Amino acid sequence: MALHGPRLVLPIDLKKKAWEQKLPLHNRWHPDIPPVAEIRTGEVFRVEMMDFSGGGITQEYSAEDIKHADPSIVHYMSGPIRVVDADGAPAKPGDLLAVEICNLGPLPGDEWGYTATFDRENGGGFLTDHFPCATKAIWYFEGIYAYSPHIPGVRFPGLTHPGIIGTAPSMELLNIWNERERKLEETGLQTLKLCEVLHSRPLANLPSPKGCLLGKIQKGTPEWEKIANEAARTIPGRENGGNCDIKNLSRGSKVYLPVFVEGANFSTGDMHFSQGEGEVSFCGAIEMSGFLELKCEIIRGGMKEYLTPMGPTPLHVNPIFEIGPVEPRFSEWLVFEGISVDESGRQHYLDASVAYKRAVLNAIDYLSKFGYSKEQIYLLLSCCPCEGRISGIVDSPNAVATLAIPTAIFDQDIRPKTNKVPVGPRVVRTPDVLKCAYEGNLPTTKNPCNNI
Amino acid sequence: MALHGPRLVLPIDLKKKAWEQKLPLHNRWHPDIPPVAEIRTGEVFRVEMMDFSGGGITQEYSAEDIKHADPSIVHYMSGPIRVVDADGAPAKPGDLLAVEICNLGPLPGDEWGYTATFDRENGGGFLTDHFPCATKAIWYFEGIYAYSPHIPGVRFPGLTHPGIIGTAPSMELLNIWNERERKLEETGLQTLKLCEVLHSRPLANLPSPKGCLLGKIQKGTPEWEKIANEAARTIPGRENGGNCDIKNLSRGSKVYLPVFVEGANFSTGDMHFSQGEGEVSFCGAIEMSGFLELKCEIIRGGMKEYLTPMGPTPLHVNPIFEIGPVEPRFSEWLVFEGISVDESGRQHYLDASVAYKRAVLNAIDYLSKFGYSKEQIYLLLSCCPCEGRISGIVDSPNAVATLAIPTAIFDQDIRPKTNKVPVGPRVVRTPDVLKCAYEGNLPTTKNPCNNI
Amino acid sequence: MALHGPRLVLPIDLKKKAWEQKLPLHNRWHPDIPPVAEIRTGEVFRVEMMDFSGGGITQEYSAEDIKHADPSIVHYMSGPIRVVDADGAPAKPGDLLAVEICNLGPLPGDEWGYTATFDRENGGGFLTDHFPCATKAIWYFEGIYAYSPHIPGVRFPGLTHPGIIGTAPSMELLNIWNERERKLEETGLQTLKLCEVLHSRPLANLPSPKGCLLGKIQKGTPEWEKIANEAARTIPGRENGGNCDIKNLSRGSKVYLPVFVEGANFSTGDMHFSQGEGEVSFCGAIEMSGFLELKCEIIRGGMKEYLTPMGPTPLHVNPIFEIGPVEPRFSEWLVFEGISVDESGRQHYLDASVAYKRAVLNAIDYLSKFGYSKEQIYLLLSCCPCEGRISGIVDSPNAVATLAIPTAIFDQDIRPKTNKVPVGPRVVRTPDVLKCAYEGNLPTTKNPCNNI
Amino acid sequence: MALHGPRLVLPIDLKKKAWEQKLPLHNRWHPDIPPVAEIRTGEVFRVEMMDFSGGGITQEYSAEDIKHADPSIVHYMSGPIRVVDADGAPAKPGDLLAVEICNLGPLPGDEWGYTATFDRENGGGFLTDHFPCATKAIWYFEGIYAYSPHIPGVRFPGLTHPGIIGTAPSMELLNIWNERERKLEETGLQTLKLCEVLHSRPLANLPSPKGCLLGKIQKGTPEWEKIANEAARTIPGRENGGNCDIKNLSRGSKVYLPVFVEGANFSTGDMHFSQGEGEVSFCGAIEMSGFLELKCEIIRGGMKEYLTPMGPTPLHVNPIFEIGPVEPRFSEWLVFEGISVDESGRQHYLDASVAYKRAVLNAIDYLSKFGYSKEQIYLLLSCCPCEGRISGIVDSPNAVATLAIPTAIFDQDIRPKTNKVPVGPRVVRTPDVLKCAYEGNLPTTKNPCNNI
Repeated sequence: MALHGPRLVLPIDLKKKAWEQKLPLHNRWHPDIPPVAEIRTGEVFRVEMMDFSGGGITQEYSAEDIKHADPSIVHYMSGPIRVVDADGAPAKPGDLLAVEICNLGPLPGDEWGYTATFDRENGGGFLTDHFPCATKAIWYFEGIYAYSPHIPGVRFPGLTHPGIIGTAPSMELLNIWNERERKLEETGLQTLKLCEVLHSRPLANLPSPKGCLLGKIQKGTPEWEKIANEAARTIPGRENGGNCDIKNLSRGSKVYLPVFVEGANFSTGDMHFSQGEGEVSFCGAIEMSGFLELKCEIIRGGMKEYLTPMGPTPLHVNPIFEIGPVEPRFSEWLVFEGISVDESGRQHYLDASVAYKRAVLNAIDYLSKFGYSKEQIYLLLSCCPCEGRISGIVDSPNAVATLAIPTAIFDQDIRPKTNKVPVGPRVVRTPDVLKCAYEGNLPTTKNPCNNI
Repeated sequence: MALHGPRLVLPIDLKKKAWEQKLPLHNRWHPDIPPVAEIRTGEVFRVEMMDFSGGGITQEYSAEDIKHADPSIVHYMSGPIRVVDADGAPAKPGDLLAVEICNLGPLPGDEWGYTATFDRENGGGFLTDHFPCATKAIWYFEGIYAYSPHIPGVRFPGLTHPGIIGTAPSMELLNIWNERERKLEETGLQTLKLCEVLHSRPLANLPSPKGCLLGKIQKGTPEWEKIANEAARTIPGRENGGNCDIKNLSRGSKVYLPVFVEGANFSTGDMHFSQGEGEVSFCGAIEMSGFLELKCEIIRGGMKEYLTPMGPTPLHVNPIFEIGPVEPRFSEWLVFEGISVDESGRQHYLDASVAYKRAVLNAIDYLSKFGYSKEQIYLLLSCCPCEGRISGIVDSPNAVATLAIPTAIFDQDIRPKTNKVPVGPRVVRTPDVLKCAYEGNLPTTKNPCNNI
Repeated sequence: MALHGPRLVLPIDLKKKAWEQKLPLHNRWHPDIPPVAEIRTGEVFRVEMMDFSGGGITQEYSAEDIKHADPSIVHYMSGPIRVVDADGAPAKPGDLLAVEICNLGPLPGDEWGYTATFDRENGGGFLTDHFPCATKAIWYFEGIYAYSPHIPGVRFPGLTHPGIIGTAPSMELLNIWNERERKLEETGLQTLKLCEVLHSRPLANLPSPKGCLLGKIQKGTPEWEKIANEAARTIPGRENGGNCDIKNLSRGSKVYLPVFVEGANFSTGDMHFSQGEGEVSFCGAIEMSGFLELKCEIIRGGMKEYLTPMGPTPLHVNPIFEIGPVEPRFSEWLVFEGISVDESGRQHYLDASVAYKRAVLNAIDYLSKFGYSKEQIYLLLSCCPCEGRISGIVDSPNAVATLAIPTAIFDQDIRPKTNKVPVGPRVVRTPDVLKCAYEGNLPTTKNPCNNI
Repeated sequence: MALHGPRLVLPIDLKKKAWEQKLPLHNRWHPDIPPVAEIRTGEVFRVEMMDFSGGGITQEYSAEDIKHADPSIVHYMSGPIRVVDADGAPAKPGDLLAVEICNLGPLPGDEWGYTATFDRENGGGFLTDHFPCATKAIWYFEGIYAYSPHIPGVRFPGLTHPGIIGTAPSMELLNIWNERERKLEETGLQTLKLCEVLHSRPLANLPSPKGCLLGKIQKGTPEWEKIANEAARTIPGRENGGNCDIKNLSRGSKVYLPVFVEGANFSTGDMHFSQGEGEVSFCGAIEMSGFLELKCEIIRGGMKEYLTPMGPTPLHVNPIFEIGPVEPRFSEWLVFEGISVDESGRQHYLDASVAYKRAVLNAIDYLSKFGYSKEQIYLLLSCCPCEGRISGIVDSPNAVATLAIPTAIFDQDIRPKTNKVPVGPRVVRTPDVLKCAYEGNLPTTKNPCNNI
């Protein structure tokens, strides 16, 4: 009997460590990391991936692994994959690589995930000044649904997607990245006032051999040393796609990626069962292992044809996306708004980041009235299918950002009503998230209204 | 025959000027502007509104009115409306006012609108450094659809909404506004580095008697002078709601507004036939006259119960919204991404405003390949039902913002294809937007790639 | 000031009777009823309509008007409207008339409607053997929402549409109609066994001068006599469109109607604020007065090009529809199933009508457990936006039909739960529908399980 | 490493025949077929299934297997599965079994399916009088999408679901089935005039030992003989659920099944990658092997509480369904209408089956103008996500049924346009469906308009 199905080009063995996989993983972007597999345009193939931590964060009911997580190892990616056309000719710099996501999901037998926030001195999150502790929630999957014993009373269908999908940068592009991020780290605190508001997190993560995994490049060789000192970290999304964290990039979606090196050499990783827009808690989606079933096309010369060289160089482009036709259908949304006035009352100028921070804080405070701790809601808004919108970006001086939450994910009616909300200990949903103490000395933002 | 329908509490006569209406309009926020109408909770009532310019911007095929528009007169609002409960007791400070939008639309016989961008020295827009000229497009409505002779090949159903809905501030809140905005204007350029990127627009619009219209308060009286010098401008959204520009606030939506003065004294205005998220061109929705049919409830003590006093005072709150169940159904979206690296290549830190600017620039460049001028697309993205999302706000140093455009609004297939895009003059859609020359001296941002 | 908006071609004065309108109405289909207005392709125009009963059914809280309603007068339609192209050339037989519904709604000041079921001996309804009495519920509109004092605890957004839109038949087509319907009436009871199940309603409604209104044709003239004796009744949908009762034919929809006479001469009527699929109670939508804003195109020769002459003649065609992009968004549906076994346990062969009857009966029984009378649910399912689906039509001997009800229209959770349903008098929602006694002698269908 | 995921309770080995599986399959309904597995309420478990033919229909590019298919063997089902609660107490007659579909899909490595229509003398289909030949199309799956080399230019996302899900009948219920279906077969042609229209297919399929597979019951034993002569065929949906063919019963859906025997003993089968409403070609979905991941609850006493004993006995009930939140999002639909006048021009009375037949015929004729054979469209409408609606069931004498087709499944614009449709051989999409000749003598329905 002849079977029919996607070809498995990148298998994962969950019993092995990230650095022991048959086809070696990598956690840096560099043009000289060689491909571990090759696919042809038109064929449907399957890529398997470990979770971004390579199994470092576990199912254990403790946040210790989060508190002491090593940021230098993220994200473990599968690939690079070399793409050739029907005639065997590889993708070339200047082409566009169209990648269709035919199917995806958790790895069979590994249907669970986690959402967490790092300790303030180990990565933090969008609201780390409010929430300095490491916390963690475990999620279990029941088909399309996820639920967590640490955030009771909530269950929702996931809009599953890869957090990372990107092509290898050319050396020229890599140099651009390293230069601009180094400059930020060197001068940022002085020149970017936003940092005062978003607080004390690493400004950038520059190349470093620590924690580096480079696929087929053997550790200890001169080649490894050179690449490890040049290769870009995977945390930010950049011109090659990468860690875009676009929550709707699910089944049936298509990504148009620029090609910078021969063969395109694209990689994928950081599978999310579900993510809220902004992924606010940083380790913030429902992180999991998973698989992708993909199909590629090459659009020859497509970068010049379709992508936008807004400058300063033709390499300064961004991918384009088409959203798939299948997503959970919610009909009711409760929407929280924030404006660009910070918690101290200071007026910022059309600053969407500050406005979104305020919208998220508003939502956390509101929802915590329904029996939750603020840490539970912070993790929930980071991973449930909520939408973060830029509503107004021109009405000086206030940017207006909104956070829309589908009401159906709760087992209670969370809309305002004329009768009183059940507040506080009367209806506390237990247990709480897993949590470690914060032992640092950085200042935190207190809500001055708490004592009013 | 007994008819049944909403009670018209605020009529507009389009043959009269803004300052000649029977129930006088106002264009400032102040607690002492007296209500012009009273409604009871539970009743459905109708409010009519002029367009935000009070008829200043006309159907004429010229952008001169935009170029020379007087910013001091915006936005002409209908109200204030005093709200009492079934027993005649007014809404009180600390209550929440739930306003349901039962129905809305353009004023009968006035089914047209406009989208524009101001001259760089007269208000500008989100991309004013790229587009310094005043431009205008006229839209005509065919029921739910809008089309413009100035942006041919595009037709879309509107998600009609009021740009402004808000309650009167208390004196205490008004003082907070004036103080923080004054401080911004005085020190902003030095302390807020974002301004370098978003360029040379007025940082804030402080109170000023010029252009002031204060409802029943007679011009020339001492009271008028006092209020005119204190009253807040209507441009930014603030704690009282106001100019939120939430594009989904259409039929069936509900707004929960904080009440700061007795009677709530809420006002509405700035009707939009349709708006893209961010309203990027500033005069940026399809601006029109219109009507609202509303129904109110009072949630006694609801501010404390439901709103979030994140500080520094209990007045620093924001409204909550419920989105209505009726909206145009689009199935395919093309999504453009931006990261927080500006056009000069400079790296910003988790700056969603910069990332969104880049996403919009990417979309404009892309879509202009299909036969449009960049000005046409700039106006289109400002007013069509596109979505602006904050996708990632934690992956240092790059914020990732996306702009999703429904493909069905175009009469051609705008997705990337393996065959070439028809570029440039070959398929130019004519005519173009209405346009005035920019005669100022401020620097503009040139795309360095244009000459590559 | 030059206004812009749809041209009103057919005004209605609600203070006048159906036969007193300035542009006379009509309630029959006949090629010789002259047009009362003319429109050009491309222009947006407005047509106003009385409710189908021409005001005969009133807002009064009594079902007497339903019980004694005169079926001979339905439906009062506006038109005929003659269509010419930009050059003034009329639509011709063989063309397709594309009618776009740009906008629609109730007539201003008349925002109410009714749902009813006729007495078993005066028209009945789909379930007349179970529900022989005349009943009525009044609905009031709050913008997009309708609620009824006679069916408490329910509120829903309407998917407003015209029940009737059709072109004038040619004499040849009219003869086909009259012949086949006469034959049915003469022989139906013997030859169509379905009648046993669907019970004792008029099989057809043949032409009759009684109650006839023929537009500009003067009553009493020989022409009137001739036409009145030939003209088809408006109750069934037929080849010309007519009473299709397609509930999704709302804003933005398009109808492609065959043209049988010069000028197309199309008419509209029977406005529905909302209708459930099947319109089971017969007077079964939320019936109202209303307006349509329309735009027409002529597709020359389109009947041959696009419509399906399946036989026996090229006139035996049906219109095609495109559904508009705006409709209420429901996310949760409770679905009831029926199979083609009737209430007596008899097996029918792939009979979708019997299966649908059973599905509706199942839904009525289920929902009545939540505090409603069965009459309330019968009317509700007739007018709320529920969907009637043919799920299986091939699995001999059972057709499977389903009725899907959006759960959000109820103010309680109507899904099955492990704890008990509150049944019967404990939670009765009062008041009930308006109701008259049935005074006839026809047998009714009793539920034999009621006594178990 | 402890993994987490659904427990596989019913594995399928595709290399083995239907009757060789480790846990034996069955293809009849009978209370005495013993369960092959047991599950507890609350646990997520996995059931695998062969396609309905047990592998009899193959990937081969020939319709011979369809022409000579043995109808006595359908449908091969997995189960029965016994359900017990957390305390080990089994479901009991009178309970409701709530089955949630957490996940589903094709079996890995077997990502293909087929759509077919049987020969007129071997099962036929809804339109067998028009299409008497056996035909077949093979579909291949690319994740959520299906495409067929035999129906080119079409690709769509599947709304995957089980065609069959049902509980074991009690002996009392089984006797009711056998009696009513026997009576139909004996008297149907005389008493049910519908048969004249729907033509010459088997009226019912009575119990017969031929082809019978009874799970753990050994063939040849007296028990086998007894059961085989009593057990109901699986083709029609009945009171126990069974072959409901509800196309929206996909991920996240819930079925409330009546329990007739201890343990509920429910079975599943007939997986469909996608199905159009009505499944008109009979072998009509995209038939495939597949898996279900399910979770059960028991609602004690739920039959009396929730289901509708409309009579004649309390066993005459039907399941209830909740539709899941994930489905492909289509925005544009082209809708075809049919009325209850048959191809000969004869008027039927409110007959939804006839009306739906006409709607399907209209759609086939229309779509075949775009380069397809009518057989291609017949198969396509049977399996693509089209919707079959009962629009009007009260407007005597015409039932109105509609068929709505999402336009996005085609690679061309299929809407009517003012320019001509490309008809016939000019644009024929090749190849055609696989097809066998019809060698019987039954009359077929010719379209009399073809020669006009």
